[in-house]
Amino acid sequence: MPASGEDNLIARYFRPLAKDPGSLGLFDDAAVMAGTADDLVVTTDAIIEGTHFLATDPPDTIARKALRVNLSDLAAKGSVPAGFLLTLALRAADDAWLQAFAGALGEDARMFGCPLLGGDTVSTPGPIMISVTAFGRVGKGKMVRRFGAQPGDRVTVTGTIGDAVLGLDVLRGGRAAAVLKRDRHATDLLVARYRVPQPRLALADAVRDCATAAMDVSDGLAGDLAKLCAVSRVSAVVDLANVPLSDAARRVLGAGATSIDALIAGGDDYEILCAMPDKSWPRFAQAGANAGVPVTCIGVVAAGEGPLVFRDAAGHPVTLARTSYSHF
Amino acid sequence: MPASGEDNLIARYFRPLAKDPGSLGLFDDAAVMAGTADDLVVTTDAIIEGTHFLATDPPDTIARKALRVNLSDLAAKGSVPAGFLLTLALRAADDAWLQAFAGALGEDARMFGCPLLGGDTVSTPGPIMISVTAFGRVGKGKMVRRFGAQPGDRVTVTGTIGDAVLGLDVLRGGRAAAVLKRDRHATDLLVARYRVPQPRLALADAVRDCATAAMDVSDGLAGDLAKLCAVSRVSAVVDLANVPLSDAARRVLGAGATSIDALIAGGDDYEILCAMPDKSWPRFAQAGANAGVPVTCIGVVAAGEGPLVFRDAAGHPVTLARTSYSHF
Repeated sequence: MPASGEDNLIARYFRPLAKDPGSLGLFDDAAVMAGTADDLVVTTDAIIEGTHFLATDPPDTIARKALRVNLSDLAAKGSVPAGFLLTLALRAADDAWLQAFAGALGEDARMFGCPLLGGDTVSTPGPIMISVTAFGRVGKGKMVRRFGAQPGDRVTVTGTIGDAVLGLDVLRGGRAAAVLKRDRHATDLLVARYRVPQPRLALADAVRDCATAAMDVSDGLAGDLAKLCAVSRVSAVVDLANVPLSDAARRVLGAGATSIDALIAGGDDYEILCAMPDKSWPRFAQAGANAGVPVTCIGVVAAGEGPLVFRDAAGHPVTLARTSYSHF
Repeated sequence: MPASGEDNLIARYFRPLAKDPGSLGLFDDAAVMAGTADDLVVTTDAIIEGTHFLATDPPDTIARKALRVNLSDLAAKGSVPAGFLLTLALRAADDAWLQAFAGALGEDARMFGCPLLGGDTVSTPGPIMISVTAFGRVGKGKMVRRFGAQPGDRVTVTGTIGDAVLGLDVLRGGRAAAVLKRDRHATDLLVARYRVPQPRLALADAVRDCATAAMDVSDGLAGDLAKLCAVSRVSAVVDLANVPLSDAARRVLGAGATSIDALIAGGDDYEILCAMPDKSWPRFAQAGANAGVPVTCIGVVAAGEGPLVFRDAAGHPVTLARTSYSHF
């Protein structure tokens, strides 16, 4: 590579994405965001080859996942995307990889109204790492926090749970793959759920208006709900039969190739988990219907700081083997 | 490690740093920054083990470098620090390492008035990577850009140039080490310049008020000035004899163990390079004197988009072997 390889890489692949004036065309050391009366929501999530995505994942899905896991946070906080920064650590500047990566990133940035503002590109001898910092705008004091769930609130979740962990199992040739092997449609759906999260930005306004507390489910529904409850100093009772599952997930579960424990402890769902009072539920359900996104009430917030209670279809408490994913 | 190792790590080492209310105590998925009339300056730089720091560097200097390379950008843009995000990719959660790292990071955050707002901690099988996104505030439309240098402007630089690249040479047992081997003070100074940059925040207001264009010198003075001039569509004439060098650097240069080319092409200076009209120079020089930071005029901006001209002490143009560091 020539001495100016890094600049060439930026010019070729990322400058076309930097349409927002605040990006200064990526010609500067910093981006500038105009001051507004709204609050700025700031979130950052990194994905690493071998941990958050597979070395064999296509570059376009890696790009989408890197951005979308952050957009998912913005949605859960009730905010509207305002832009993002990209830090890319690569072993080499592979043109085919970069072209597919940047192309898909640009498509998602346009689709979700979240322009590239800046970033950093560095070389690493290790796994590819993509760190995104995303910005959202929300009315002053209106960001929905994890803190705030009240006893009696409904525990609600968007979309379906457990598909991504099954998608990973399919990619690894695990038991889910064995159950579904003749059904390409079902395996494709699960793999897509692992590789390309669907940030629920269409529900961000409804979350902002309805939820007393919210977060996105990234490390497993059970563990993430436990975190939300711990910060809110409450507990919750969850009816496992109400946890929304896709048809594909139901088939794998029905065949005994996974357990409800594994589905609600698996990561990478990127759905919104939130608590809200009964009176807000009709508005939230309507927003889900309008957006074409299932929204489901899976339990109720309980007073006290005890552990979560998970109940089976008969209403009996069950004990889970594990509740979430942890890096360390 | 227990299932909640990541949360324990955050609680133990980083929550004590998250004093700013916008950090929400690191209990949330996002931080919140209150809207203001000021513009927000946003910059992100990552440092990777083996590329930007050595595996043998102490964790406290690694922490300081990770934050300070970003603070250096904020200073060069004329802004006041407002907070930062930290993304940490580690192979393992080593308590001694984390304690030293977080302790030094907290000290620097306090000293520079730049609180920890949030971040992400992930595991990697590869080299340690630390990505920081830093925020600064500056009056509306007042951020100093790379664009804007005018023919006739003075080319000025803070501090001294080339110390960091010599410090790296010392750590590697190179020729600088051989020249200075009996002088522990000099080698320590150069190593410190490599490991712990000095962000010139004390000069940020003066940069904002005086400079027509500015950037921090991170990839070598010669190459970075070329970038500033290219964006500003001008050129520059630089008098190499005026490039500010430390006594230690002068000795290494005098002994023939380095060249002026290498010093002005070496990276990691983290000084401010800026252009300003003659009339602003007295104000800038006074600000340097007040802050105890040398500020030096090294040349003049020239009309036209030709290559930079570097002159020797006799005023003759010289050709440089290389001008900057590039990752690819």
